[in-house]
Amino acid sequence: MHRFRNVAIIGVGLIGGSIGLGLRERKLAGRVVGIGRNADSLAKARRMGCVHETTTSVAEGVAKADLVVVCTPVEQIPAFIAQAAEHAPAGAVFTDAGSTKATVVAQTEALLHARLDGLLPFIGSHPIAGSEKTGAEAARGDLFEKRTVVITPTASTDDHATATIEHFWRSLKGRVTRLSPARHDEILARTSHLPHLIASALAAATPADMLPLTAGGWSDTTRIAAGDAEMWRQILLANSVQTLKGLDDFERVLARLRQAVEAGDGQRLAEILAEGKARRDALGS
Amino acid sequence: MHRFRNVAIIGVGLIGGSIGLGLRERKLAGRVVGIGRNADSLAKARRMGCVHETTTSVAEGVAKADLVVVCTPVEQIPAFIAQAAEHAPAGAVFTDAGSTKATVVAQTEALLHARLDGLLPFIGSHPIAGSEKTGAEAARGDLFEKRTVVITPTASTDDHATATIEHFWRSLKGRVTRLSPARHDEILARTSHLPHLIASALAAATPADMLPLTAGGWSDTTRIAAGDAEMWRQILLANSVQTLKGLDDFERVLARLRQAVEAGDGQRLAEILAEGKARRDALGS
Repeated sequence: MHRFRNVAIIGVGLIGGSIGLGLRERKLAGRVVGIGRNADSLAKARRMGCVHETTTSVAEGVAKADLVVVCTPVEQIPAFIAQAAEHAPAGAVFTDAGSTKATVVAQTEALLHARLDGLLPFIGSHPIAGSEKTGAEAARGDLFEKRTVVITPTASTDDHATATIEHFWRSLKGRVTRLSPARHDEILARTSHLPHLIASALAAATPADMLPLTAGGWSDTTRIAAGDAEMWRQILLANSVQTLKGLDDFERVLARLRQAVEAGDGQRLAEILAEGKARRDALGS
Repeated sequence: MHRFRNVAIIGVGLIGGSIGLGLRERKLAGRVVGIGRNADSLAKARRMGCVHETTTSVAEGVAKADLVVVCTPVEQIPAFIAQAAEHAPAGAVFTDAGSTKATVVAQTEALLHARLDGLLPFIGSHPIAGSEKTGAEAARGDLFEKRTVVITPTASTDDHATATIEHFWRSLKGRVTRLSPARHDEILARTSHLPHLIASALAAATPADMLPLTAGGWSDTTRIAAGDAEMWRQILLANSVQTLKGLDDFERVLARLRQAVEAGDGQRLAEILAEGKARRDALGS
């Protein structure tokens, strides 16, 4: 028997498509329905085998769902969850895959509380498995294997939803961690959103005529700047306070580096470079 | 017949070791001698097959050389070239593989002019093929294949040295480009030295307890921060003026991003992110 009877995925890009593919490859779902606005993207997801069927109608797509996963850019998540909750059968559980959680979860809970009594069948998720690649053509059924997936239960979250979603990500071989939405955003600001800002600034600041003389260093350091600009606009604005705090800390270290270089202070410069190396080495490759 | 009778490599780490391996695999040199101060590093280079023999004596190592390549950290290059020039046979040609060129070439030429009349048998080189890896154990005979190698002839450079060294890198399958030392440093400040500074600052600014929640973005953006701190201290100080100019430009773009995030100005933010994406996309993967 399948773990899920019918899973509706709203937004079948890299993440949504990989969820569909993972569910199908592992035979975890009886039926996977892809929901989206763009007919081309939906056709791509079907061709890739990410979903059994597709529709542009949320109401139709979730009509039989016991699980709904919203994988759109963050600003659209709350309204899609609310819309799905209106049309899905009783007992359905809802989650998302957004890269920011505090605003998304607060807005979603506010919308659901207006319609539902008691604890909510929604819990925020963030599978930390993004890429500068986008679209269902980049989807992989093993995208979440050994990747950290943060779930963010709150005082409003129904325990059944928490257990179901934890189970869902584990069945895709993710490593599930629970954090509050606020703590999630505090951490991700520094491990993901700030690096994106910095990579974008470095790429934009490099004169185009110098690109032929870049090597592995520039290309690694700027790789994520190739990510979708609109998606990242939304992430950076949804987590602006924490990202700016991370930027303050980064700029403090950069100012120390600048002072050391300006002063020709080799000892101080070597010390800061060694700090950076120690932190990077701690991660491994 | 071999292209070079006897090649002496001073400093047999990643770059020096790869030169030796490339020369041997392609049978371009009758004999390759590795010269260094550290017995362990020399033994590693021998074990890796990078060199036929090793010595800690520059005088002995270059005694029969028709080509001497200095692959040490930048601060040591001028003195090693001068020392090698004192002991090598007449007709020998000298180059280096340092990541900065203006100071290295000026200091080397000053030392050589004090000993030699006329044009100099030395030309600066920079194979743009570094890595965060170090040591002969990371050496590869194909490291320079299709990689850009900048050579920096000046008014003092003998044409025979330029032709020999251009030929040398081409025989290792590098793509040779000529630039002035100053222009080389202006470009590399932005394509290599500044990215290192930024990657180091980002790594050092990330709290250690958040590392488990990093993903591909952080790990790409900070990869080069794992590079050897002492080597990079020397590079950043040797090219401090241009690196600081690049830092000014980077900080201007970063300030525009900060303002857009602070103001919640999505349109402006998306524009700057799109600039960064366009520049990164222009490079390809």
